[in-house]
Amino acid sequence: MKKIYMDYAATSFPKPNCVIDAVVQYMQNNGTNSNRGNYADAYKTASVIYETRKKICKMFDLSEGEHVVFTQNITYALNMILKGLLKKGDHVLVSSMEHNAVMRPLVQLQKEGVSFSRIPCTTKGELLVEEMEPLLQNNTKAVVLTAASNVCGTMMPLKEVGKVCKKHNLIFIVDSAQIAGIFPISMEEMHIDVLAFTGHKGLLGPQGIGGFLMREHIANVMKPLITGGTGSLSDSEEVPEFLPDKFEAGTLNIPGIYGLHASLSYLEEVGMEIIQQKEEERLSQLLEGLRTIDGIIIFGKETTKDRVSVVSIQTDWMDEGELAFVLDEQYGIMTRVGMHCAPNAHKTLGSFPRGTLRFSIGYQTTKEEIEMVIEALKKIKETQSIM
Amino acid sequence: MKKIYMDYAATSFPKPNCVIDAVVQYMQNNGTNSNRGNYADAYKTASVIYETRKKICKMFDLSEGEHVVFTQNITYALNMILKGLLKKGDHVLVSSMEHNAVMRPLVQLQKEGVSFSRIPCTTKGELLVEEMEPLLQNNTKAVVLTAASNVCGTMMPLKEVGKVCKKHNLIFIVDSAQIAGIFPISMEEMHIDVLAFTGHKGLLGPQGIGGFLMREHIANVMKPLITGGTGSLSDSEEVPEFLPDKFEAGTLNIPGIYGLHASLSYLEEVGMEIIQQKEEERLSQLLEGLRTIDGIIIFGKETTKDRVSVVSIQTDWMDEGELAFVLDEQYGIMTRVGMHCAPNAHKTLGSFPRGTLRFSIGYQTTKEEIEMVIEALKKIKETQSIM
Repeated sequence: MKKIYMDYAATSFPKPNCVIDAVVQYMQNNGTNSNRGNYADAYKTASVIYETRKKICKMFDLSEGEHVVFTQNITYALNMILKGLLKKGDHVLVSSMEHNAVMRPLVQLQKEGVSFSRIPCTTKGELLVEEMEPLLQNNTKAVVLTAASNVCGTMMPLKEVGKVCKKHNLIFIVDSAQIAGIFPISMEEMHIDVLAFTGHKGLLGPQGIGGFLMREHIANVMKPLITGGTGSLSDSEEVPEFLPDKFEAGTLNIPGIYGLHASLSYLEEVGMEIIQQKEEERLSQLLEGLRTIDGIIIFGKETTKDRVSVVSIQTDWMDEGELAFVLDEQYGIMTRVGMHCAPNAHKTLGSFPRGTLRFSIGYQTTKEEIEMVIEALKKIKETQSIM
Repeated sequence: MKKIYMDYAATSFPKPNCVIDAVVQYMQNNGTNSNRGNYADAYKTASVIYETRKKICKMFDLSEGEHVVFTQNITYALNMILKGLLKKGDHVLVSSMEHNAVMRPLVQLQKEGVSFSRIPCTTKGELLVEEMEPLLQNNTKAVVLTAASNVCGTMMPLKEVGKVCKKHNLIFIVDSAQIAGIFPISMEEMHIDVLAFTGHKGLLGPQGIGGFLMREHIANVMKPLITGGTGSLSDSEEVPEFLPDKFEAGTLNIPGIYGLHASLSYLEEVGMEIIQQKEEERLSQLLEGLRTIDGIIIFGKETTKDRVSVVSIQTDWMDEGELAFVLDEQYGIMTRVGMHCAPNAHKTLGSFPRGTLRFSIGYQTTKEEIEMVIEALKKIKETQSIM
């Protein structure tokens, strides 16, 4: 049975061949650490890492090349940002659609005296920008916002929120997990101060690599959450103040960085706009197809406008867990059910506590695959009606 | 020019072929995330991760299978341990030979009211166990100890220190970076409560994977430093209390774990004692060879007893940075110079602030390579004498 991968929002698969090749080439032919050894191969590794930082800066339109920090994943990045910037007495705004990668660190920080308010969203997950200013307090320091919901795909108005942040001198922190590599983000134009990214979703790199970018004034005030050997200032037990060493301790995931370097080159070559356009076509096809089946509730926006290719559904004819099982076992269609690590998003959308079944589309999803998904759902529904 | 890799203490290279194969197989044929999707491939990924945890427990002789936490590297692991366990008013003991992966987090914690004392070591890096008890205070909570120095290779008396920890009810935390995969460590016999490991040195896995193991009573009291989505208890913004989810947030480095799974299988097959014996022969050969060259100071112990295969030197005929450059450029010999992220170790050994040139041997180092290193050093010295 041919498998149909519909879980791109969890991780993209397959990766472009060049990504696997880059990982293998590094592991087979170089393999050395960086910032550690004193030999040509180690310098070569360092230069690929540097180039990857530059590509990331270009991707998110930030000019400061040394202000990219690599971490294991975007969750680590968000923890390092939030716990490095916020202290007792600070207040932040978040949307009501945030992932637990933002909410769990914030709920932890709440116990240490940090407070937060949720900017309300519509039942389609659209942020009500006009509700931001009334929530501001004297101690409001930052706004933390997902760029697009991982549950229903609704994109957030980053530019509008950025304007409010600029007006009130708030640090604007963006979680780009579901959007990076598909839709363009400009840290300059959107007044974003810190942006967290994951390498293994839309950026098409391997799992195990993510990070964040920040502006100079943030780098100066952020405390490092993780410290240790950096291969620099090694005569001191104090953490270096310069970047990226201030925030990058211990050995990096170098195979992961080589993979990300290759995937970013692939994205540059193919063109993000081509991928976005293709995904939009598939998304439109999926939404239309789902609407032809009775008893399916689609969460989020009806059209592809301001929407990434994540589609959450419930049916009135089957439990989502069971549906995912049948889709996988009988049709080879891979999906994800439940809360998708974003309970408050489901509360906003009205799908809490039941959760949803989520289809997520990626750069390799074909027209035929979407047709097969729709066909499979129709057949499963028929079987249900007979029973 | 054939390259001679003498930087195994920074990372092992080459990795066994099976490691690269495992990474490629995963990335090409499975590629899915774990704890996220509801389909067979995602469950397969989860089972390989679970098996890797079991292999790690076996390697360090700990029976509790779910108490392995994966991180990007051992530095992250040590930060999570120290910052998760220590709070204002706590006191810890460390050796005078610790790496900055331990010292930088401790110096950070010092600013928040944690204090530490250094257990003195001899000028060969040997821990003076009898000096431990006089340093104990009412608030001493833990002992943090490297298993072997990354500068001079001297191994620490883990069993003896473990006894003192048990006697005084101290948490015993071990940094196994330079020893894991080469010398056996038994958390049971040595009374170790928490052990941090790196996957990419003696364990022969890829960079980007490390972690820690801990006993039940530690897991209960340790606070998670990093929190976020876990794919579990997703209806809550609170962190799950169960393991490993309490300490593993966001997507793991799954290709890295597949690689580590393969390298641990390789170590089981070849046998750690075979690798250790081979490394000891090469170490002995290197130490003997170095002694035949005038004007070389070898730091650490003279013989291979209680010594991992890391050899730090200074010469009275050349600056170490220059020597490393000539070794690499003219002889293809890769080494590392400086402080090796352990300034206080150099203070202990008497090599501060100049630092040393470090050779480190691994499972693939051959007799011929050691001969070539000795020959190269002799030739470089001759050239120096002529000049």
